[in-house]
Amino acid sequence: MLIVPERKIADLMSREAAFEAVEKVFAAMSAGEARNFPVIREAIGHADALYGFKSGFDRETLNLGLKSGGYWPGNAAKGLTNHQSTIFLFDADTGKCRAVIGGNLLTALRTAAAAAVSVAHLAREDAKVLGIVGAGHQASFQLQAVAEQRDFERVVGWNRTPEKLEALEKTARDLGLPFQSVSLDELGAQSDVIVTITSSFAPILMNAQIRPGTHIACMGTDTKGKQEVDAALVARAAVFTDEIAQSVSIGEAQHAIASGALSEVEITEIGAVINGDHPGRRTPDEITLFDGTGVGLQDLAVAAAVLDQAIQKGAAVEVEF
Amino acid sequence: MLIVPERKIADLMSREAAFEAVEKVFAAMSAGEARNFPVIREAIGHADALYGFKSGFDRETLNLGLKSGGYWPGNAAKGLTNHQSTIFLFDADTGKCRAVIGGNLLTALRTAAAAAVSVAHLAREDAKVLGIVGAGHQASFQLQAVAEQRDFERVVGWNRTPEKLEALEKTARDLGLPFQSVSLDELGAQSDVIVTITSSFAPILMNAQIRPGTHIACMGTDTKGKQEVDAALVARAAVFTDEIAQSVSIGEAQHAIASGALSEVEITEIGAVINGDHPGRRTPDEITLFDGTGVGLQDLAVAAAVLDQAIQKGAAVEVEF
Repeated sequence: MLIVPERKIADLMSREAAFEAVEKVFAAMSAGEARNFPVIREAIGHADALYGFKSGFDRETLNLGLKSGGYWPGNAAKGLTNHQSTIFLFDADTGKCRAVIGGNLLTALRTAAAAAVSVAHLAREDAKVLGIVGAGHQASFQLQAVAEQRDFERVVGWNRTPEKLEALEKTARDLGLPFQSVSLDELGAQSDVIVTITSSFAPILMNAQIRPGTHIACMGTDTKGKQEVDAALVARAAVFTDEIAQSVSIGEAQHAIASGALSEVEITEIGAVINGDHPGRRTPDEITLFDGTGVGLQDLAVAAAVLDQAIQKGAAVEVEF
Repeated sequence: MLIVPERKIADLMSREAAFEAVEKVFAAMSAGEARNFPVIREAIGHADALYGFKSGFDRETLNLGLKSGGYWPGNAAKGLTNHQSTIFLFDADTGKCRAVIGGNLLTALRTAAAAAVSVAHLAREDAKVLGIVGAGHQASFQLQAVAEQRDFERVVGWNRTPEKLEALEKTARDLGLPFQSVSLDELGAQSDVIVTITSSFAPILMNAQIRPGTHIACMGTDTKGKQEVDAALVARAAVFTDEIAQSVSIGEAQHAIASGALSEVEITEIGAVINGDHPGRRTPDEITLFDGTGVGLQDLAVAAAVLDQAIQKGAAVEVEF
């Protein structure tokens, strides 16, 4: 059994490799070659923790396994990340556990990669202004991954507490992009691409704030009840997602689906666009919205990519098991 | 992170420790202190494999985690066990992966321990003859664990291909117990305690074959469609189980429930007997039936016991993670 500790992931995984792994598995999902299993997510009744699993199997790559872990709100006070994840890969030919891989950084990278894949396939080619809503741990990862997909000239950001935008501003500057903290009205009026990456339970961006031609990647909503944008905006947009079953139940689309403003058949898997089965954006004025819910196969895909790198570089710890 | 490889389990785990761990967690389940999460079980569409997870959390012991693996029918030809399991324990205070533990032998031990717990709490004290139905990998484990619970004088066994009973006969002889291969009629007429441990999809033991006062532990049925005993026998018996939700859906009781011959409220969790909340066997003539479906908390309980032993004996491999 091979072990790749959390602290080694940063040196082994690149944004490019994460993009490639996530794009490929989205395509495999849409082609029916890869499938996510039902998600388990439980409040355990201890330490206010949410614990669970995301899992799946990709017949093309033979990636099989799960990500396990969850959210421990008391961790920060102990100097630990609140979100704790470990990824386990299994040998699809024998069922033996093949590898244990730290999943904290990989979760941020695979989520950012999903937004980047959506921008690559759905945003206007001439997009110049990137808007980021949210300034939590994952916002900088999103900015870095998405900024590479178009020739952006500047970044605008919004956060409920604007002071927290500092880290995002630094990331933008490191990328050579001017950064401005703006109101939501300004953000909507200026952005060609918007990423929302919050834990909101009420809409932040409203329909009227968004101009035609915008691509929005809603990356924060992964639970029943969460919501980042106006349901009317979701109904107005051409909606794409990683997995339709999750989009309509725990994703950003859940509210537009519940109100009847959107129906499941109107949602397209991003994999269909990657595979060329769907044209993606149809006109420059269309609003495209990617509902990124986060699937187990993304975790397995980036973990397998890390494992390959770790084996090549001799960075995996081998334990006889 | 601590690793306890499969090959070290045999030296670290005793039947007594497995019995104690399983009895304790059954009690915790019944007291509402421990809970299994939904089971994932998927045909992956590769190597004819079934893959999945059993998981849970015990607030008393803080055991949190899962067993993952499944059934790979082609493994035997490669010199590997068809059933492959790995158990992952998580730190309930932080969500970090605490240990990875080989789960193959532990699965056999925890299943045998469950039958033994049922015999300890439900069989007549004066039981003398033990009947075993089935001669697969787990049958000898069952015999060893159950034989310790009463002063048995002899063992009778039945298998579809009687030649395969040889291993069971050797196990009985090693325990100092005479063994006889018998017909199902003879097995029912002679046994005070019966363990069924098969992968049958049709009833093997019929109602008319079982005499009053028998305790039957049905340990093989863990999937929709499987069945080891006549539904009329289940309806006639006082039915106990590890977990009622599994008993009525994937356990031996599923058929009597489906036909209406048994209702869910008539089934008692064995933990209630262990806790003293239910008297268990009411009369010497009552037939008691334990529907052992196998729950994730059993796996976590025995894995935690092994881990304690491994730490004490310096047998766990520590990997910085």
